[in-house]
Amino acid sequence: MNWKREIKAAGTRIEGHVLRTPVLTWDGLGLADPIELKLEQMQHTGSFKARGAFNTLLSGPVPQAGLVAASGGNHGAAVAFAARALGHVAHIFVPEMAGPSKIALIRETGAQLTVVSGEYANALAAAREYEEASGAMQIHAYDAPATVAGQGTCMAEWVAQGLQADTVLIAVGGGGLIAGALGWLEGARKVVAVEPETSCALNAALAAGHPVDVEVSGVAANALGARRIGDICHDLAVEHGAQSVLVSDDAILEAQKALWRGLRQLVEPAGATALAALMSGAYTPEPGERVAVLVCGANVAPDPLG
Amino acid sequence: MNWKREIKAAGTRIEGHVLRTPVLTWDGLGLADPIELKLEQMQHTGSFKARGAFNTLLSGPVPQAGLVAASGGNHGAAVAFAARALGHVAHIFVPEMAGPSKIALIRETGAQLTVVSGEYANALAAAREYEEASGAMQIHAYDAPATVAGQGTCMAEWVAQGLQADTVLIAVGGGGLIAGALGWLEGARKVVAVEPETSCALNAALAAGHPVDVEVSGVAANALGARRIGDICHDLAVEHGAQSVLVSDDAILEAQKALWRGLRQLVEPAGATALAALMSGAYTPEPGERVAVLVCGANVAPDPLG
Repeated sequence: MNWKREIKAAGTRIEGHVLRTPVLTWDGLGLADPIELKLEQMQHTGSFKARGAFNTLLSGPVPQAGLVAASGGNHGAAVAFAARALGHVAHIFVPEMAGPSKIALIRETGAQLTVVSGEYANALAAAREYEEASGAMQIHAYDAPATVAGQGTCMAEWVAQGLQADTVLIAVGGGGLIAGALGWLEGARKVVAVEPETSCALNAALAAGHPVDVEVSGVAANALGARRIGDICHDLAVEHGAQSVLVSDDAILEAQKALWRGLRQLVEPAGATALAALMSGAYTPEPGERVAVLVCGANVAPDPLG
Repeated sequence: MNWKREIKAAGTRIEGHVLRTPVLTWDGLGLADPIELKLEQMQHTGSFKARGAFNTLLSGPVPQAGLVAASGGNHGAAVAFAARALGHVAHIFVPEMAGPSKIALIRETGAQLTVVSGEYANALAAAREYEEASGAMQIHAYDAPATVAGQGTCMAEWVAQGLQADTVLIAVGGGGLIAGALGWLEGARKVVAVEPETSCALNAALAAGHPVDVEVSGVAANALGARRIGDICHDLAVEHGAQSVLVSDDAILEAQKALWRGLRQLVEPAGATALAALMSGAYTPEPGERVAVLVCGANVAPDPLG
């Protein structure tokens, strides 16, 4: 797969449908050097997921039966949003663990919604059943080329906005966002994959040499709690030598607080996970190494204005 | 006063002490044209006030007794923050109506803090007494040249960041922020002064022909509730023909919700007041008129991670 070409095409396709999210330089952490941030949590529906959803919908014909997605919340909201924007029907299967805030977010878009008891894998199974019965088109949350190419536009956009960093820290769930970044960067900058200790499908896959099932739990699990890393992500991480680091739930919550106290950016735990690696020392830059952190989701629970 | 020169000098003085806050273009309101936003609520201590505080402290000698300020919250937090950053003592007098979130924010900076019962004017009187007794230096929240020049750097920065708009909407309390904007723009773009119906000191002054006392109340009063507009602001508003519009508390809360739902920016009511004018129709652009909105404060109560 020529990811650079796919991502460039995705960028053209989704232009005008997604927000060009702002970037800034921040010295509020007391580190030796300021860091660069991209506020991708400001994207439509509060996470980067809208990029992959629009790219998929705009890449080919959509059946009359519309779309189906299984999602811990953010992907479902993005698919529902993109479907409405483009005039399609969407049916979203959400695991109970997504929580009331994310479920409400999807409901607001007007999508059909089924809440499935338990975790993400159960919602995925239900979505697959519906797909076969209805003829609706499934949009995978992370392990599909059009999804990855769409998420890759986030890194392409950041580079076009003047990203200086040698190293970019990105949170990993199923790996769609980081796969897109690796595909765009092609090794030109170092990429650090940050996962919660309690939901670390990429870390486990790199240790085993191939994707394996992991248990998922913890404060960021409703966004990062994929049981198995996507093959696309795994292969790109190996190819480009992404460094894998883990952070504790406490470190994630500290980073979440730092973004609010220091920058008045209220993000969900998953959205603060990449920053947690830097603050906790899970990733320590070399002297002079310029570091950037991708902030990727803000669907906090409870909704502060709910 | 040559405001352009003063603001330019202020910008040089405070560089590195304040954040260059991000800007973006947003089409999420369903208006005919996208709008430009500057996220100045991301500034240190959650509002633009840090600009004026740093400029004042860096403009001349600070007495051994340090600083004193009276503030509904945001100005006090900014003075306390700037004082600590530059190694000075600060004593902040806060009216009870500032609320626990803002009071906690000031306390966290390590400043001495006195909570005065009632509204802003009472805190100001107490601060003046302390000033005389201690020899500490008073930093006025809005009606002092160094404060206005500092706040003016916000508009100077926005223009340097490529602001396209013909018209800029800015919320007004005592008028420091809009005065700085008017001083920088010198009539080159239209400036719309937005106040809550329930705290409208500039509107009343423009009607009377001079600053007059007004009653203050409503959802944004702890940030915009100045009883009398600053002379500097009033004079600049008259000189450059700023248009004054009023918005209801309901419109402010709607705009606050829109910023959270649409952009995941959680701001305080005052920070959403300028946007409220556009959403409610209190200000209606002409066809083709490009509009920008300055988002200026995010010290919400209760603290969402408190």
